[in-house]
Amino acid sequence: MFQNYDVIVVGAGHAGCEAAAAAANMGSKVLLITMNMQTIAQMSCNPAMGGIAKGQIVREIDALGGYSGIVSDASMIQFRMLNRSKGPAMWSPRSQNDRMLFALKWREMLEQTPNVEFYQDMVKGLLIENGQAAGVLTGLGHKIKAKAVVLTNGTFLNGVIHIGEKRLGGGRVAERSAEGLTEQLVILGFESDRLKTGTPPRVDGRSLDYSKMEEQKGDEAISGFSYLDTPKPSMQRSCWITYTSPEVHDVLKTGFDRSPMFTGRIEGVGPRYCPSIEDKINRFAERDRHQLFVEPEGWNTVEVYVNGFSTSLPEEVQYEALKKVRGFENVKFFRPGYAIEYDYFPPTQLNYSLETKQIENLFFAGQINGTTGYEEAACQGLMAGINAHLKWRGEKPFILKRSDAYIGVLVDDLISKGTQEPYRMFTSRAEFRTLLRQDNADLRLTEQSYRIGLASQERMDKVLQKRKDVEDIKKNLKETALEPSEINAFFQGIGGATISEKQRLEKIILRPNLNLEDLSRNVPKVKEALNGFSKEAIEQAEIQTKYQVYIDKEKELVDRMRQLEDLEIPEIFDYQRIISLGAEAREKLTRVKPRTLGQASRISGINPADVQILMVYMGR
Amino acid sequence: MFQNYDVIVVGAGHAGCEAAAAAANMGSKVLLITMNMQTIAQMSCNPAMGGIAKGQIVREIDALGGYSGIVSDASMIQFRMLNRSKGPAMWSPRSQNDRMLFALKWREMLEQTPNVEFYQDMVKGLLIENGQAAGVLTGLGHKIKAKAVVLTNGTFLNGVIHIGEKRLGGGRVAERSAEGLTEQLVILGFESDRLKTGTPPRVDGRSLDYSKMEEQKGDEAISGFSYLDTPKPSMQRSCWITYTSPEVHDVLKTGFDRSPMFTGRIEGVGPRYCPSIEDKINRFAERDRHQLFVEPEGWNTVEVYVNGFSTSLPEEVQYEALKKVRGFENVKFFRPGYAIEYDYFPPTQLNYSLETKQIENLFFAGQINGTTGYEEAACQGLMAGINAHLKWRGEKPFILKRSDAYIGVLVDDLISKGTQEPYRMFTSRAEFRTLLRQDNADLRLTEQSYRIGLASQERMDKVLQKRKDVEDIKKNLKETALEPSEINAFFQGIGGATISEKQRLEKIILRPNLNLEDLSRNVPKVKEALNGFSKEAIEQAEIQTKYQVYIDKEKELVDRMRQLEDLEIPEIFDYQRIISLGAEAREKLTRVKPRTLGQASRISGINPADVQILMVYMGR
Ligand SMILES: Cc1cc2nc3c(=O)[nH]c(=O)nc-3n(C[C@H](O)[C@H](O)[C@H](O)COP(=O)(O)OP(=O)(O)OC[C@H]3O[C@@H](n4cnc5c(N)ncnc54)[C@H](O)[C@@H]3O)c2cc1C
Ligand SMILES: Cc1cc2nc3c(=O)[nH]c(=O)nc-3n(C[C@H](O)[C@H](O)[C@H](O)COP(=O)(O)OP(=O)(O)OC[C@H]3O[C@@H](n4cnc5c(N)ncnc54)[C@H](O)[C@@H]3O)c2cc1C
Repeated sequence: MFQNYDVIVVGAGHAGCEAAAAAANMGSKVLLITMNMQTIAQMSCNPAMGGIAKGQIVREIDALGGYSGIVSDASMIQFRMLNRSKGPAMWSPRSQNDRMLFALKWREMLEQTPNVEFYQDMVKGLLIENGQAAGVLTGLGHKIKAKAVVLTNGTFLNGVIHIGEKRLGGGRVAERSAEGLTEQLVILGFESDRLKTGTPPRVDGRSLDYSKMEEQKGDEAISGFSYLDTPKPSMQRSCWITYTSPEVHDVLKTGFDRSPMFTGRIEGVGPRYCPSIEDKINRFAERDRHQLFVEPEGWNTVEVYVNGFSTSLPEEVQYEALKKVRGFENVKFFRPGYAIEYDYFPPTQLNYSLETKQIENLFFAGQINGTTGYEEAACQGLMAGINAHLKWRGEKPFILKRSDAYIGVLVDDLISKGTQEPYRMFTSRAEFRTLLRQDNADLRLTEQSYRIGLASQERMDKVLQKRKDVEDIKKNLKETALEPSEINAFFQGIGGATISEKQRLEKIILRPNLNLEDLSRNVPKVKEALNGFSKEAIEQAEIQTKYQVYIDKEKELVDRMRQLEDLEIPEIFDYQRIISLGAEAREKLTRVKPRTLGQASRISGINPADVQILMVYMGR
Repeated sequence: MFQNYDVIVVGAGHAGCEAAAAAANMGSKVLLITMNMQTIAQMSCNPAMGGIAKGQIVREIDALGGYSGIVSDASMIQFRMLNRSKGPAMWSPRSQNDRMLFALKWREMLEQTPNVEFYQDMVKGLLIENGQAAGVLTGLGHKIKAKAVVLTNGTFLNGVIHIGEKRLGGGRVAERSAEGLTEQLVILGFESDRLKTGTPPRVDGRSLDYSKMEEQKGDEAISGFSYLDTPKPSMQRSCWITYTSPEVHDVLKTGFDRSPMFTGRIEGVGPRYCPSIEDKINRFAERDRHQLFVEPEGWNTVEVYVNGFSTSLPEEVQYEALKKVRGFENVKFFRPGYAIEYDYFPPTQLNYSLETKQIENLFFAGQINGTTGYEEAACQGLMAGINAHLKWRGEKPFILKRSDAYIGVLVDDLISKGTQEPYRMFTSRAEFRTLLRQDNADLRLTEQSYRIGLASQERMDKVLQKRKDVEDIKKNLKETALEPSEINAFFQGIGGATISEKQRLEKIILRPNLNLEDLSRNVPKVKEALNGFSKEAIEQAEIQTKYQVYIDKEKELVDRMRQLEDLEIPEIFDYQRIISLGAEAREKLTRVKPRTLGQASRISGINPADVQILMVYMGR
């Protein structure tokens, strides 16, 4: 009853949805199989997209023609550009989303994607032909064939849920776990291991006293995620901030002897950077409070997400502790926090295209690769979908470099370093973060995606227009020079130094705390120079001008690294003799035998100093 | 961590949601516990509300102050008043609903009901104190106390799903089943048994050829379900009609040897009146086609529900057969049809208040009582919620009579006859159906509900206004007489007999095929008589006038039956001697020993003739 598909995507979480959309939009006939069509694109944990480094990823997904940005824009109840006070490399868009609307919008968009077909069933195994993936076997006994298979099982593989001393099977609370797949993959030679993640309790917003918390409003102007013109909400809902206290911590500690983490009942490693509240208390014993974000779950619901209070302690302990938090004195629980343990496959078993090394035509994306987070999952799904399509078409894989995108950093980190704990993105993981900004993801990526047939003509045209506009504005900035008489009044108004001779706008805006928007509001000649250009193009031209020095420096570094990258290390190189290398570095280099300096630099435990020593020994 | 509640409702299906809302609106502190807060008010099967007899129930629920009517109005994508060509007793409102929106709206309304609290957990057992229900025990180990408990577990108790030879545990596909409760109840002395129901496949609307089907549009004017002023959609989506054929039946038959029903793998009895397609083929072998309704699942989804094709045959057989249906030649499946078996408790174990006879303060409502259908479940939930509240308040139960409402018929049927197969409502079950119309549920019921503190003042005021308007209109109809010159032209226009002398409007409208709306459009004096009255009030006055004879006759019958009802049968009555009674009747009457003639008449297997014989022997 099934045709032969080009690509089968297993699982309709963030990774699976992006994978299906990408392959389909490139022309593959796609079947998206998922256990429950009612839970397509469920947010398992917090109702929010983006944030620091993650927001950049959503922008990149959008620039490449993925859907996450559009869906986030359509379902947001609040938007904030984080880190606006820092340099533009740190600006990070983040939205609070209506959980139901988010899932609904994803489903709608997928349904409107002509090449995506759906089927509800649990995949129990792979069809293997000539050692290659050739389709899937489902719980209902269907054998469905495809030229490529993308697995995006999330937290469902042999998922076990923990709340205090309680253990339940399940892929998310109240959902079944998926069995059979891990076992087959292990027989096929894959290595698998356990990880864990957790989620905080959901509570009844009607039981909270917001007057005791700090309000956090959305931005006045919503810039959003998508580079396309998506409609933005005209109203926003606020979030609220409150704090734990020593008292709260004391109550939590009363449950530590029944904590599945501390008693060793959970074997999987948890996310170091998204720790549970009991972890935080344990690891940062010196801190007497932790921030909690109190986030609404949607436009019309009283359900509230207690961000920062992820926990798998016994439920009474969760409750008694939360009651001691300011504003939560009368809290009512809807659902307790819990931890979940699941199987993942160390991602060093993958190629850069996210195809597995063991089995051709088989791709892995998302949490199954040891990552955590919707954005991390979604971008892998996108890349796996693209590469699954390119693979069966016999075309070469689409790989983003570390200097192209956060996505490139993520994939490179996973493939070359692997991960022993749930991997999430940070700006600090990107060595070229001045280049990888949220404002220029379209300029960086859309053309590449357009060339492989994913990004639409509309996107490409918008980028070309933006590029042209930015150049025109920069030209205007260069050519517009202001007389002292035209600008000094303004400078005096803001307490800045006046000028005594004509100065180019290009130079003027290098002053800190000065921006084109303010200038053009106050200085007619500036207004004129920017007349007719979009806010986005002006901002882009301004960033490029203001930060040109840093950007150029980083570009140079990219070039230098690229050369290094390819610098071959002789096979007979004897690391043991280089005593200036640390013992760990010697040991690892000897074991891994990197082919190039680039590869050497990415081995976990090898730091930049080690690389420089190697360069010296290689005569550079 | 839980307060003591007045009422705990277990399960947030149609029954549970109404129960929680009713008890809360009467003033009870209610906790609604359900396994998954993401699936509150899920429609397990078809995305539609109402229909013949069921539509009347929704109107009754609304008249009593339940939410189902409002939710249905808010989420409808199509509305039709069925049977408009028949007498008003047969008119039955039916809506096609957006599945997601329906659930969303229910959840929103419940969240906005101040006394309803929520908790996500699986109830595993009851707390029993002094032989009475005193709360619940949950899967996470919570003991939560309440003065009354309402169980509405639907199809979840030890649910087993069948598709061909496949068997899966689950309360709905991809959802867990609930264990523990049945077992405890059996230990407590309850009898339980198995029933089964089924659902058709869901398919991809993009794969259908609608040009080969008949279109079925919604009504031009939507009257809707609620007596309150709910907004109605300005557009509607069409449904489509197609048919099975001998060819389709032949394909289906190839799977009969693997059918879980025919091979005896399903022990539970299925719904006779909502049979699977394989049942229909088997039982109505002479029919060479069956109608299928092709129903969209929502505003923005391509998912389609194939109403009439419920099946648990192996999936390939479902598929191959459906492909032979006109318009389905290229059908793509989203999810297969399946059957589900579950525990129910024969409802003869209940009092009329839906409280169990065994355990005080314990109420059962919905599918757990052996019914099928959302409307049947919802109205029981409403009644159980009301009575749970009244119980702990020490007030007398609220019981609707068979002559009050379809709800009265349903409860009476269940309690006094029980059911061996899933029970659904039909107009034929109601002996007073001329009285129990969809147009007058508010006049019949709102005041009763208002008196016990459920229906709001707003509702009551609307009913009082309607009553007054109807009386005023009827007075006008009586007082307005038309001269031949005023009306004969109109009669000639519609080919009706003219009049030769003045006639009262009251008399004129007794003519068939004549209605006030037409008249008032054409005859100024009629228009004047109706001026300023609502469409609803005019329709009501018209129905009361036109059908007065039938209505009066039925009212008389009600009175007579009420007397009979209470006619006591002497305890020493010896049925074995009345040989004119059938053997079955003699046997049952001897066993049951009914106290009154009314009770005797409701014993399953006792027919009206038997009752008449009894009357004769009792000297009437
Ligand atoms: C309890 C919990 C807490 C979390 N906490 C955090 C957090 O604090 N911070 C953070 O950043 N991230 C957190 N996450 C992770 C975040 O939810 C995931 O990173 C993200 O959802 C992963 O996306 P995915 O697409 O890989 O998988 P998922 O979103 O898990 O989707 C997997 C999909 O695959 C389907 N599926 C699985 N197996 C099969 C099969 N065999 N056949 C068919 N379909 C199948 C499932 O039904 C589901 O639709 C948490 C997740 C959970 C469950
Ligand atoms: C596959 C299928 C096919 C059907 N086909 C038809 C049909 O053709 N025609 C028709 O008229 N009707 C049909 N029905 C029946 C219709 O769906 C039900 O009559 C109606 O939904 C019953 O409502 P309910 O409130 O009694 O239970 P449900 O709607 O089943 O709701 C039960 C609720 O209780 C919760 N729950 C159960 N156990 C526990 C527990 N222990 N603890 C906490 N929560 C619990 C569940 O999560 C769920 O929310 C079908 C149902 C199914 C599942």
